[in-house]
Amino acid sequence: MGAVLTSIAGAVLHVVNNNPAARNALSVEYYEGLRAALARAADDPAIAAVVLSGAGGFFCAGGNINVLKTRAAMTHDERVAAINGLHEVIRAIRDCPRPVIAAIEGGAAGAGASLALACDMVVAADDAYMALSYVRIGLTPDGGATSFLSEFAPRQLVNEILMLGDKLSVSRLHALGAVNRLTAPGKAVDEALALGERLAAMPPAALAAIKKLAQTARAQPLDAQLDAEVQAMATAQGGAEAAEGINAFLEKRRPDFTRFRQ
Amino acid sequence: MGAVLTSIAGAVLHVVNNNPAARNALSVEYYEGLRAALARAADDPAIAAVVLSGAGGFFCAGGNINVLKTRAAMTHDERVAAINGLHEVIRAIRDCPRPVIAAIEGGAAGAGASLALACDMVVAADDAYMALSYVRIGLTPDGGATSFLSEFAPRQLVNEILMLGDKLSVSRLHALGAVNRLTAPGKAVDEALALGERLAAMPPAALAAIKKLAQTARAQPLDAQLDAEVQAMATAQGGAEAAEGINAFLEKRRPDFTRFRQ
Amino acid sequence: MGAVLTSIAGAVLHVVNNNPAARNALSVEYYEGLRAALARAADDPAIAAVVLSGAGGFFCAGGNINVLKTRAAMTHDERVAAINGLHEVIRAIRDCPRPVIAAIEGGAAGAGASLALACDMVVAADDAYMALSYVRIGLTPDGGATSFLSEFAPRQLVNEILMLGDKLSVSRLHALGAVNRLTAPGKAVDEALALGERLAAMPPAALAAIKKLAQTARAQPLDAQLDAEVQAMATAQGGAEAAEGINAFLEKRRPDFTRFRQ
Repeated sequence: MGAVLTSIAGAVLHVVNNNPAARNALSVEYYEGLRAALARAADDPAIAAVVLSGAGGFFCAGGNINVLKTRAAMTHDERVAAINGLHEVIRAIRDCPRPVIAAIEGGAAGAGASLALACDMVVAADDAYMALSYVRIGLTPDGGATSFLSEFAPRQLVNEILMLGDKLSVSRLHALGAVNRLTAPGKAVDEALALGERLAAMPPAALAAIKKLAQTARAQPLDAQLDAEVQAMATAQGGAEAAEGINAFLEKRRPDFTRFRQ
Repeated sequence: MGAVLTSIAGAVLHVVNNNPAARNALSVEYYEGLRAALARAADDPAIAAVVLSGAGGFFCAGGNINVLKTRAAMTHDERVAAINGLHEVIRAIRDCPRPVIAAIEGGAAGAGASLALACDMVVAADDAYMALSYVRIGLTPDGGATSFLSEFAPRQLVNEILMLGDKLSVSRLHALGAVNRLTAPGKAVDEALALGERLAAMPPAALAAIKKLAQTARAQPLDAQLDAEVQAMATAQGGAEAAEGINAFLEKRRPDFTRFRQ
Repeated sequence: MGAVLTSIAGAVLHVVNNNPAARNALSVEYYEGLRAALARAADDPAIAAVVLSGAGGFFCAGGNINVLKTRAAMTHDERVAAINGLHEVIRAIRDCPRPVIAAIEGGAAGAGASLALACDMVVAADDAYMALSYVRIGLTPDGGATSFLSEFAPRQLVNEILMLGDKLSVSRLHALGAVNRLTAPGKAVDEALALGERLAAMPPAALAAIKKLAQTARAQPLDAQLDAEVQAMATAQGGAEAAEGINAFLEKRRPDFTRFRQ
């Protein structure tokens, strides 16, 4: 079996990190499989959303420590290139026009937590944890961890999480808004697929525009974000999705947006 | 009766969106009336704060769907201009030197939620809701919604709110800090007026400076914000409000800042 | 006794604002003592972390009102220079490569609250408060208060805190993530020293890099932060701390990072 298993449930592409013996530690094979899956999701009209999970009841243990050990012998530029392999995956999740949902069972550690927090929504089993314990082996965070943590945690909490490396309960993350749904253990994937199915009923171009707006909102001033909203809204108001959505509303029927996926 | 009713309670200008038959859907008439009221508040020494509410127990339903339907026949630039009509109102709230308080009864939907979140403080009846359901009719958010949501919600929650369009309870917003006061149903306006009256006892130039600093703090680095604070504080320390405030403190009397409104 | 008392507990430098008769109001002497202590912490291999507290059961009352009164007679530029005296201290906390922890007993008011929030972590006795009541004497916030509040509070709450000047319970701050630990009254310093001792077991260069990344994460786009993470991680992977950390992990022993402090 490959490093990545993909399957389709309804209109949702389910991508499984399939290396349970290593608690789904990140690998170049996983990066390649995930990027291919995201590219397919973007292009395939049958796919409305993507769910990421890990095989064997654990989301992802992050970097493989034996691989990390080999980095010391590389040049700085070679290390930069290797780390950018992860960052290209993070950017691919960000740039995928379909919503990407992380389904966390067990735990998400190190760059596995970065990967989960890069997603547009997060579902987690209520006994799962995140941990960003890079510091304990003399490393610093990657995969956008510092950026993603700062979206829901003030600097004092970001420092605590990263300087001590203690486990973070997903219920704390839920209270802070970074985890969208808590489920019973073993039910995170089902809930994520159901969420994906709800998204599949939504207008795809509007979802892609919302995803982009949510990414730029935090770090740019109100004026710039207002301008981005105007462009997105003026485009939407002239488009087929709005015509269908407004007509359906006025005709008191459910809209059918599925035909707009392309 | 007009689209906007204004009245003065003490030192607070109360501006009512008065189209209850349409749940106070936004209109060009409301935009004009609100902008005129904000301009008056800025210039009238008798006015210290502004409260926005809606007639008939509902804050604002957002855009009028029949008006939105006509946008498809416009050019892109015409649509941009129409949306900017809303954004000029959002900017007028931002740029008004007096604090503006939203008093939410019932609900605030679509651009009505953007309007509420554009305000400097928000009071809400505890059974009220916000909803940003643009996506359900094929549209994307406007009025600064994506920027304002990102002030209190991480990207995952912003996506959930905007991609699913579900109602958001004001108690959740209160826990996250975006709603300042929860009241019993029917009491939001009274509480907002009382809050406005407290603000009327505060030094007006300091309030205006705080409002500006709170707007720039989020999206700029610490160094730039420190510089903005230095300029505001150096100006305040040389001003009449500080002289009155410091003398009153040392003389153990209540300061009288009302004479500084101009 | 001087305005600043310093002592060393284990690997933690404890810096006490020692003017309890004035509830440790800020002074030029305190600024000088604190900056000297931070410079020493940065250079002394024996020191891994810094704890700030106030003598007599109160963290810091902020600016001295009699000193503030004299500012009116200065020129604008002289006032700017005086305020920048505080801001240089705030920047020194930010730029110190060692983690700085505030230990709050009693209260932290005005620029005393700014000073506490400038720290990398905050421990507070559960009956303590913060207050930013500048507005009540006609002043506006300084010391980075508006920036630091905006890390955990949306604009509406920042406005409320600064426009009304009411006390803020540290339990609210704890829920929002800006206070890391709540303790019984009288125990904040002990807890902060214990936290400092935990940090002393961590790799010092990694801690310094994490501190920097946590500072830039909030106000810059994901791409820029990813690039900052790459550089920090590529450096860490090539360094002695990672070699020790990874080897210790693989050898199932505790790493010894203390020899890397310099």
